[in-house]
Amino acid sequence: MTALAPEPGPDTTGPVFDAHEGGKLESTPTKALRDRKDLSLLYTPGVADVCRAIAQDPSLSFRYTTRRNTVAVVTDGTAVLGLGDIGPVAALPVMEGKSVLFKHFGGVDSVPVCLESGSVDELVEAIARLAPTYGGINLEDISAPRCFEIERRLQERLDIPVFHDDQHGTAIVVLAALINAAQVVDRSLEGLRVVISGAGAAGVAIAALLRRSGVHDIVVCDSRGIIEPGREQLADHKRRIAATTNPRGLQGSIGEALEGADVFVGVSGGTVPEELVATMADDAIIFALANPDPEVHPDVAARHAAVVATGRSDFPNQINNVLAFPGLFRGALDSGASAITEPMKVAAARAIAALVETPTAGEIVPSVFDERVAPAVAQAVADLA
Amino acid sequence: MTALAPEPGPDTTGPVFDAHEGGKLESTPTKALRDRKDLSLLYTPGVADVCRAIAQDPSLSFRYTTRRNTVAVVTDGTAVLGLGDIGPVAALPVMEGKSVLFKHFGGVDSVPVCLESGSVDELVEAIARLAPTYGGINLEDISAPRCFEIERRLQERLDIPVFHDDQHGTAIVVLAALINAAQVVDRSLEGLRVVISGAGAAGVAIAALLRRSGVHDIVVCDSRGIIEPGREQLADHKRRIAATTNPRGLQGSIGEALEGADVFVGVSGGTVPEELVATMADDAIIFALANPDPEVHPDVAARHAAVVATGRSDFPNQINNVLAFPGLFRGALDSGASAITEPMKVAAARAIAALVETPTAGEIVPSVFDERVAPAVAQAVADLA
Repeated sequence: MTALAPEPGPDTTGPVFDAHEGGKLESTPTKALRDRKDLSLLYTPGVADVCRAIAQDPSLSFRYTTRRNTVAVVTDGTAVLGLGDIGPVAALPVMEGKSVLFKHFGGVDSVPVCLESGSVDELVEAIARLAPTYGGINLEDISAPRCFEIERRLQERLDIPVFHDDQHGTAIVVLAALINAAQVVDRSLEGLRVVISGAGAAGVAIAALLRRSGVHDIVVCDSRGIIEPGREQLADHKRRIAATTNPRGLQGSIGEALEGADVFVGVSGGTVPEELVATMADDAIIFALANPDPEVHPDVAARHAAVVATGRSDFPNQINNVLAFPGLFRGALDSGASAITEPMKVAAARAIAALVETPTAGEIVPSVFDERVAPAVAQAVADLA
Repeated sequence: MTALAPEPGPDTTGPVFDAHEGGKLESTPTKALRDRKDLSLLYTPGVADVCRAIAQDPSLSFRYTTRRNTVAVVTDGTAVLGLGDIGPVAALPVMEGKSVLFKHFGGVDSVPVCLESGSVDELVEAIARLAPTYGGINLEDISAPRCFEIERRLQERLDIPVFHDDQHGTAIVVLAALINAAQVVDRSLEGLRVVISGAGAAGVAIAALLRRSGVHDIVVCDSRGIIEPGREQLADHKRRIAATTNPRGLQGSIGEALEGADVFVGVSGGTVPEELVATMADDAIIFALANPDPEVHPDVAARHAAVVATGRSDFPNQINNVLAFPGLFRGALDSGASAITEPMKVAAARAIAALVETPTAGEIVPSVFDERVAPAVAQAVADLA
């Protein structure tokens, strides 16, 4: 009889797993519990007075409870990083990481909430039912196109900010980077021809925010090419893209879109061959944001473009959502905003861009460790609340 | 024209509100985020390796995420303290307080989850959908009889401990206190005649745990008197009580039940007149646990009983759930228990009782600040996991 070797488990050696040992967050009391007197103030019988007061005036929950400063980082694990639908438990390390960033950069307390996935109706119900606990809801890594309807319905239903970071966090930082990149090449946003590769959460939101910021000529491509009204069997969200972009009525592949384009924004994970990149206009701007493998390698992009950015920390101009979300929620919580509005997103992008005093090809966005960023974004949001 | 004075808001002055200013919990990173290297370990791109490993082997979530040590304190705000159905937002200060106690006494990280209420089906769905985030679920302040079915169905469905503290936490500490009180009056549990006033969450669970611990003669009363099969229109949970208690077939009011009884356990919030208390047997034991007003004032009880306990901290023998829940979850989390079983509850009660070396009328339970309690309870639970 020969014993079968056990199936090998995942390799969990190395510094990443060491850094994750035991998780990355804890839940810490902010008030001292020393004796019976403290117990009677923080818990029974004293706490009943606070409960009664909030029952009478629910707005007091934003003063006397953690709602004041707590955001739920909510996912169903269906679109985690570039890993796809890995489920809620496997998504937890990302949500914890996000909570670490919320606290570190924005002083925002946040807690991961990883939900078993389900229909749009089921997720909206589950998240809405949770809302009384929190001061805001950051949706994360929920697959498109479900994420659009989930966010919209929650925003309609709840009176606290609901913000899908994969959409709007990305769009805000892209807009910030584009404001400064346009300055580097001495162009106005209004005159740019922009190609967005990817029609998921990020692509849809980037197109919408750029339009709102004055960019007229946007063409969005997916794996089948240019999204335009003549294409068959377009999903609802792509039909909306077709109706609101592509003013020159282009058809065909991404190659047709890139010819003469000023800006390429990659949020697809695909790759774009150098011969297509070479057809872009002079002084092109390339944001190749797929992680870890940009749609165009920055060295290749640099041969054809005046400004290059990626999502990676090991190249210049890292376009990273952490420039936006901590300050956004900081500002929303501090000002009691019931939503993060479109004007707030534009203002946040302008605030991020303004922190780079003299944009150059090598510096169009501030460092993620620039401590001025979150306060500046928070102020921009609060000013509009 | 006379201006109407504005409706006065709740009075929020005094030390209780001062202690609640800003809430009582924060969410704190446990790992340092100093530079790009830390960021790449704790967040992207490093975190993807941990996600992939957990997707392959979900049990790794109990090593590399906060699940290892995090319990959700879940309520719908329908039965908060003695305040009743005040809703989820107003319940939040209690849940935060509970989280403070979890951390202080058990080293357990916990987070409040206050849900909009709904049907049993809706709450089971909502809570089950949340479960991937946590290592255990502590149900709290959910009204009876809904709480029984909610807990049962969640226990069946989930593979992490689900524990309704108002039921079992109370029952465990009552059993611990009764073990020592019986020793004080030199009686065995088996021979005691016990009357429980209150057929809500606590009463039902106390009756069940005392039966399991060898108490034969239990009579449960509600506001209409003794619960027995002859009563009309009994709710399901009371029909089960009628079928499993009251072996002498008593009928009538609580007065009939108390005559000659050895033990009174009050978890009703009602009051019991002294003339009825006076009919109890010699060496009676009275646990009058309603808060803040015990069913029998301890001074009155002392005239007729050998051992008296309350739920209050300003009288001897405080029967307080905090003696149980931090250690229970500590033990369950440390041992990877998928449920908190009936034998674990009995073992926890025995462990609490055993910490009082020589029980006396003035000391049948340890102090809530006795640091030996949680570790002893945790060990008792882990030994049975």
